[in-house]
Amino acid sequence: MLLKKNIPLKYIFGKVKYEVTFVAIYATCIVIWDKYFHVINISIPLSVPMVLGTVLSLLLAFKSNQAYDRWWEARIIWGAIVNDSRTLTRQLLSFVSDPYVSVQLKEFQDRFINRQIAWCYALGQSLRNKPITEEIREYLTPDELVFVSKHDNIPNALLQLHGRDLKELLEEGLVNKYQQIELDKTLSRLCDSMGKCERIKNTVFPVTYSLYIHFSLFFFILLMPFALLDTFGIMEIPMVITIAIAFFLIEKMAIHLQDPFENKPTDTPVTAIARTIEINLKQMLNESKLPEKIKAGESDYYLL
Amino acid sequence: MLLKKNIPLKYIFGKVKYEVTFVAIYATCIVIWDKYFHVINISIPLSVPMVLGTVLSLLLAFKSNQAYDRWWEARIIWGAIVNDSRTLTRQLLSFVSDPYVSVQLKEFQDRFINRQIAWCYALGQSLRNKPITEEIREYLTPDELVFVSKHDNIPNALLQLHGRDLKELLEEGLVNKYQQIELDKTLSRLCDSMGKCERIKNTVFPVTYSLYIHFSLFFFILLMPFALLDTFGIMEIPMVITIAIAFFLIEKMAIHLQDPFENKPTDTPVTAIARTIEINLKQMLNESKLPEKIKAGESDYYLL
Amino acid sequence: MLLKKNIPLKYIFGKVKYEVTFVAIYATCIVIWDKYFHVINISIPLSVPMVLGTVLSLLLAFKSNQAYDRWWEARIIWGAIVNDSRTLTRQLLSFVSDPYVSVQLKEFQDRFINRQIAWCYALGQSLRNKPITEEIREYLTPDELVFVSKHDNIPNALLQLHGRDLKELLEEGLVNKYQQIELDKTLSRLCDSMGKCERIKNTVFPVTYSLYIHFSLFFFILLMPFALLDTFGIMEIPMVITIAIAFFLIEKMAIHLQDPFENKPTDTPVTAIARTIEINLKQMLNESKLPEKIKAGESDYYLL
Amino acid sequence: MLLKKNIPLKYIFGKVKYEVTFVAIYATCIVIWDKYFHVINISIPLSVPMVLGTVLSLLLAFKSNQAYDRWWEARIIWGAIVNDSRTLTRQLLSFVSDPYVSVQLKEFQDRFINRQIAWCYALGQSLRNKPITEEIREYLTPDELVFVSKHDNIPNALLQLHGRDLKELLEEGLVNKYQQIELDKTLSRLCDSMGKCERIKNTVFPVTYSLYIHFSLFFFILLMPFALLDTFGIMEIPMVITIAIAFFLIEKMAIHLQDPFENKPTDTPVTAIARTIEINLKQMLNESKLPEKIKAGESDYYLL
Amino acid sequence: MLLKKNIPLKYIFGKVKYEVTFVAIYATCIVIWDKYFHVINISIPLSVPMVLGTVLSLLLAFKSNQAYDRWWEARIIWGAIVNDSRTLTRQLLSFVSDPYVSVQLKEFQDRFINRQIAWCYALGQSLRNKPITEEIREYLTPDELVFVSKHDNIPNALLQLHGRDLKELLEEGLVNKYQQIELDKTLSRLCDSMGKCERIKNTVFPVTYSLYIHFSLFFFILLMPFALLDTFGIMEIPMVITIAIAFFLIEKMAIHLQDPFENKPTDTPVTAIARTIEINLKQMLNESKLPEKIKAGESDYYLL
Repeated sequence: MLLKKNIPLKYIFGKVKYEVTFVAIYATCIVIWDKYFHVINISIPLSVPMVLGTVLSLLLAFKSNQAYDRWWEARIIWGAIVNDSRTLTRQLLSFVSDPYVSVQLKEFQDRFINRQIAWCYALGQSLRNKPITEEIREYLTPDELVFVSKHDNIPNALLQLHGRDLKELLEEGLVNKYQQIELDKTLSRLCDSMGKCERIKNTVFPVTYSLYIHFSLFFFILLMPFALLDTFGIMEIPMVITIAIAFFLIEKMAIHLQDPFENKPTDTPVTAIARTIEINLKQMLNESKLPEKIKAGESDYYLL
Repeated sequence: MLLKKNIPLKYIFGKVKYEVTFVAIYATCIVIWDKYFHVINISIPLSVPMVLGTVLSLLLAFKSNQAYDRWWEARIIWGAIVNDSRTLTRQLLSFVSDPYVSVQLKEFQDRFINRQIAWCYALGQSLRNKPITEEIREYLTPDELVFVSKHDNIPNALLQLHGRDLKELLEEGLVNKYQQIELDKTLSRLCDSMGKCERIKNTVFPVTYSLYIHFSLFFFILLMPFALLDTFGIMEIPMVITIAIAFFLIEKMAIHLQDPFENKPTDTPVTAIARTIEINLKQMLNESKLPEKIKAGESDYYLL
Repeated sequence: MLLKKNIPLKYIFGKVKYEVTFVAIYATCIVIWDKYFHVINISIPLSVPMVLGTVLSLLLAFKSNQAYDRWWEARIIWGAIVNDSRTLTRQLLSFVSDPYVSVQLKEFQDRFINRQIAWCYALGQSLRNKPITEEIREYLTPDELVFVSKHDNIPNALLQLHGRDLKELLEEGLVNKYQQIELDKTLSRLCDSMGKCERIKNTVFPVTYSLYIHFSLFFFILLMPFALLDTFGIMEIPMVITIAIAFFLIEKMAIHLQDPFENKPTDTPVTAIARTIEINLKQMLNESKLPEKIKAGESDYYLL
Repeated sequence: MLLKKNIPLKYIFGKVKYEVTFVAIYATCIVIWDKYFHVINISIPLSVPMVLGTVLSLLLAFKSNQAYDRWWEARIIWGAIVNDSRTLTRQLLSFVSDPYVSVQLKEFQDRFINRQIAWCYALGQSLRNKPITEEIREYLTPDELVFVSKHDNIPNALLQLHGRDLKELLEEGLVNKYQQIELDKTLSRLCDSMGKCERIKNTVFPVTYSLYIHFSLFFFILLMPFALLDTFGIMEIPMVITIAIAFFLIEKMAIHLQDPFENKPTDTPVTAIARTIEINLKQMLNESKLPEKIKAGESDYYLL
Repeated sequence: MLLKKNIPLKYIFGKVKYEVTFVAIYATCIVIWDKYFHVINISIPLSVPMVLGTVLSLLLAFKSNQAYDRWWEARIIWGAIVNDSRTLTRQLLSFVSDPYVSVQLKEFQDRFINRQIAWCYALGQSLRNKPITEEIREYLTPDELVFVSKHDNIPNALLQLHGRDLKELLEEGLVNKYQQIELDKTLSRLCDSMGKCERIKNTVFPVTYSLYIHFSLFFFILLMPFALLDTFGIMEIPMVITIAIAFFLIEKMAIHLQDPFENKPTDTPVTAIARTIEINLKQMLNESKLPEKIKAGESDYYLL
């Protein structure tokens, strides 16, 4: 997630440097060609590229709207993961009832909730196509690690272990039948959130749509110099470049927003959210040793 | 689903080849007619077709918005099918409780989950108006095949068999009453997803809307040469063609997105999703022999 | 629901014949008046009606968006009715448990599900302000017909009978307490769908909005000839007519989509959907005598 | 709710009479000033106010979209109240089970459902800031009236009485534990609907947005005469007035739609809906004396 | 929340005073420079900035749409908090059943509901990054204060205490198993609302989008004088200022709406809503001493 501060101009304009360089050279060539060879006769009335510009703005506005919706949906899903992780912990603590207040029970709860923390981190990593880290391993028992290693989809395997523990809770009489169902519903919601993230990750935004906009945008930029040459002369170059930057930037923004799990600064900050969950759950378990919240440093402009 | 790579230009432009050929011939005729017969007096001010173009863009943008919503809803439904299939499996494994850990129970679970895999494939096939494949048959028992063969709506028949098995589970005391209800709720969600797919498949996008846009688009293209002839002369031909390609392409894109179950490259990739479900469920059942994930080959540009 | 094929031009243009005739006469009068009396001095710059046209397109696009949403919501509701009818049947078959497999139980289930089929047809008829047909009566017992005849809202009365049967099932111990609740939830969803249809049926689309657009549209059409007369002369007549057809058609389309239960070709095809439900439920009951699916004939262009 | 018929022009134009009178005087002054004093030199190119008009249309279209959403949401909420009132009644009749079919039970059910009817009317009145009517009082017992009189929020107090009765039903063994929960869920949904209505009622539509549009609209109207004076001369007056009417009308429409509980003709027809609920519930209770449906009279153009 | 009345112009224009001052100086410089040095040759055709203005309006309209959606979602969430607080209270009063009508039970209910009031206030404070007030402390017992002081996330800690009390209620047999689950569901919904508020608070609106619009807006304003200079001369200054005010105001409005928990006049009025909840819950508990409703004073123009 990009933060409000410190965004370096280099980051912003770095996105469009190749396109803009090309446009700058192209616009300069047109001016030079016009000046020294006088061979260009195709002067286009300004209204042609301008109306094309309106059309393009409309399409770009719709596209960035849909990209924004994907990005916001991804954030909503991770918000739901926060909520369901807290709910799962509250339910585990307030449902399970043991007359002997045994040490085993406390250990069981700790193991369950640690696994939930691991699930959050593991989901974030798997969405970014990265292996699970050493940090995640520490939250899992050796048995769990063996079980998990046999699965392609690690978060799904962890949910299966959650389900297995619920069964144990019921069989040992620590939760009643309704509480098992209720805890299972929370697992189903977590399973839904996981599947929704995978859906956004695995579904390419309609390619033909993006391609069409990209082609039209280039066609529009290539027409611009011919329309501006008559009125502005050499001043045409900075104007074409400025307009090109504006349109390319908004196109790039939409492209970045539409893929929120790609290990880029515009990503949904899944690691920071998982850390928040970690702190919340540990505090609910009364643990004193808490990790630091992930905060952006002085010079950072984004949070992952 | 179209992939990001390898999309052949032939595929893109092949969609509009008849329309563009017609426009090219038409634009050329106008030029020739103008040059040799000098009879065309109807020169239209450029602003007429340009404003018409803005209007059309607005309508096309709205239409492609609605087409995108249908396409995205189809994808969301199949995402829900993934989630509910996993949830069903987790529930079957963690709810059913048998003190004797019998072989029969394991067989029962396998049969149930195999039937769920068959359901996913069969739904995909039925949405594409295709018969169930041999592959699907292997996941069903002979009894089930007989039962299913009497039904028009095969996925619905499979859900009915799911329900029958739930009843058996309850009667034999393997699940308690609440667990039966909870499993039945998962079946209801699957039934909803199935019905939603059929709704998208069977509901024609408002025909009058599409027709009106198509007529206006042709009218707009037919006016163009008269508006551009004065300014551009023979250069009018490539400009008219370019503009026609742009508008026709975006119209086609909307038409393809709006029907996501038609066995076309822009389809929701139901077979690939069903395969993912197959792998997930088999891994949850601890099976070692897993099918390959469906991946796009080097030269493929789409996934079905 | 309009189908993709066979839509007669007569149907499309029949919608706007009065408006277009009026515009044709009006445009001709202006030309004649201009030619023989030379008294018209009000020549309007083309940009006035053109910008007005853009504004109108924007309003029409938004309005047709909202009309589409109403139409699509109506279709979604009937999709939910399909799903909940199937779910109700599956639940009735898989919940009810009778150790003696009595004939009475089979009769009871048949009566219940027949009543559900009647409910679907009756809802469709009541939305179209039509009486229940003889076909519906056949699905109800004489007692039920007497009960229903005392109610204004027949589908609601049928739901009440559903609820009464659920009570009987519980009292005779054929379903357990949770199953009664779960079946009642399905009834509540059907009750919701019914209420939603009535909401769309009974709520007039904001009249001021429609009126304003209609007035502005006429004002725009009336200005057109003055703007086109100078440039096009007598050719102004076909142009005004073409533009008028385009705008009137899109206005009509929105008006038709916004009221999806009016017994018109653009309706939600409630009878065809009810027939699909009938076939599905009968097949789930193992009945061999199935009605024909409602399909559009060779020359039909819509389905009701 | 405005009806489709009989809307008097007086009603429509009455909304904007002050604004339009002002614009008429202003436009006339400009013409007179121009004719007799020849001092106006500021002739604005037509494109300035026209583009401003496009911008304003865009903003007005978005605003009326959001206003429509508020209005439609209000209607959806009242639709849900209809559904939940019917569901509550069906549940009360089909859940409560009394082996002795006592008179007390019938009285209890009647009292409960009468209170639900009172709740619907009372909610409508409280949303319009009106006291509860004598009609509502008749549906409540003296005890209930005393209880209710101590509360600011009468519908909320009635829901509390509903909850108290549910408790009594459970304690007397007339419903089982699950049925109590299920009835309580219906109460929760009614409580949600109530809160949602209050939210729409109490939340002012963003004032800065409305103000900005209003200022820009006036600025646009004030510029118009200068742009039209050169071309149209004295004909400028009717044109400015027509355009002003169009824009002011659409602005007013949005303002009326955005506040659907203000005792105005554009209101959600809460009284008529409450009457429909009253008739439905009484019929479900087998009462023979039914009130008349609220229908619009011959000369009415709206329903409250 | 801004109210409909009393909004001081100072407040509205104070938002954009720096930008407008800068634009005024800039526009004046251009005029002076043009008048005394005659060196400006770059006269831009009016259509360039005007089309740019249309594009900007489109982007601003979309952005303010998304900002409005965030603002409205925040309001919906707080509406849900109102509903769930009332539901929680109703459930606590109508579920808990004590044959001895003991004083302890009444105290228990009071403590629970007071904690819920504290939760609402505490959530509002934590969203505005403020410490919990003395007023909140009074609603909590010393034990609760000690527990809460160990947590970073105070509302979450209060929900945990709610859960602990639910467990106690079940263990002492004051609620049955289903009622515990149902009350826990209400807690889960409150937990969801809390998480949703945090999501809106912590997620920065896509920065690149805002930045791009801001840059383009400045570029557009800087071009304006050159386009207007020829036609209007010195009158260019007020026109540029007026247009700048209009665009900057709508940009600011969007920025304010998109962050609804920042202790600003445009905020969601969380304190006033929490007070409403306080009054409702106390009345449901039959308390006679009620706090005053937070109402805007005569000269106030907003409510927090």
